[in-house]
Amino acid sequence: MLVLSSPSGAGKSSIATALLKADPNLVLSVSATTRPPRPGETDGVHYYFVDVPKFEKMKAEGAFLENARVFDNYYGTPRVHVETQLAAAKDVLFDIDWQGTQQLRQNARDDLVSVFILPPSMAELERRLRRRGQDSDEVVKKRMARAADEMSHWHEYDYVVVNHDFDQSLAQVQTILAAERLKRGRQTGLKAFVASMS
Amino acid sequence: MLVLSSPSGAGKSSIATALLKADPNLVLSVSATTRPPRPGETDGVHYYFVDVPKFEKMKAEGAFLENARVFDNYYGTPRVHVETQLAAAKDVLFDIDWQGTQQLRQNARDDLVSVFILPPSMAELERRLRRRGQDSDEVVKKRMARAADEMSHWHEYDYVVVNHDFDQSLAQVQTILAAERLKRGRQTGLKAFVASMS
Repeated sequence: MLVLSSPSGAGKSSIATALLKADPNLVLSVSATTRPPRPGETDGVHYYFVDVPKFEKMKAEGAFLENARVFDNYYGTPRVHVETQLAAAKDVLFDIDWQGTQQLRQNARDDLVSVFILPPSMAELERRLRRRGQDSDEVVKKRMARAADEMSHWHEYDYVVVNHDFDQSLAQVQTILAAERLKRGRQTGLKAFVASMS
Repeated sequence: MLVLSSPSGAGKSSIATALLKADPNLVLSVSATTRPPRPGETDGVHYYFVDVPKFEKMKAEGAFLENARVFDNYYGTPRVHVETQLAAAKDVLFDIDWQGTQQLRQNARDDLVSVFILPPSMAELERRLRRRGQDSDEVVKKRMARAADEMSHWHEYDYVVVNHDFDQSLAQVQTILAAERLKRGRQTGLKAFVASMS
């Protein structure tokens, strides 16, 4: 389980998309959310778009590995999808915030690798948020405040990548993923391999 | 501190040499040993060649981070060299066996990353040992027994690399090193960097 967190605008989503494209063994954990779709977002691909009663029902049933409220919207990670992928020996990528990461650490039986992506500067972060052009000034202001809050949790993560350059940051996250796969405990065939030699 | 261990003949020394050549921030921890130099080995580069009384004296003075007896020879890691390099923000590479690694884990204040390199097969290991051509049949036999002993400790290491192919194995160790450097606690400038943004 690979968690990417960052303030909105630090480039996390672009890195996540490129990671998934380059690595067939990595699949995205699709979150459920009560927020409306943005242009270009597809139900079941970017999010499962649900209404508040449905979300509350799932939450009450323990269907989420983690869930959080952000502004007026709810977000949650459906447990069943993640467990199915892990059982199929896939690595699962989580695009979640610090609240979700804390819950995931508590609720997940499987091991978890967490990466925090920092923007090169707050000015650059605001520039990126404004360039999106989808959000009003007020929303950008709220996002900047939320970014500061999110960034205050960088020290809870295993790895930190400062996103000066997209290609370099992508390569760094890929390096982390490749190294973590070389950890002894994750190479499931090793015990049999060594046994076959003696 | 990066430890590479493997049975003799698994390719560890070639990987270590290539790692050091490619990475100016990585320096070798040169061991002291009482065994005689092999052809091509230089005092102070490959080993510090010392006699038994000198070795015993260093050991008694606590000059070693780890030390071990292998066959009739003694090996030890002089503490002062390692500490000087770490203080200069260098990463230090250790080419030591499982005994040394266990001691290093206990004695080292700094954090340690350990990699075990496995041969692709025992037959290939023996072939590589014989190809060296520097050792008698009896020595090869002893080394094979020692290789089996060394290999029985693979599960004490953080990472495992199976050396099917030199270039791939080198790249894997480099990937491990690069990822470990992205760990939060090892990026010493991060706290100041984040503070400068808020």
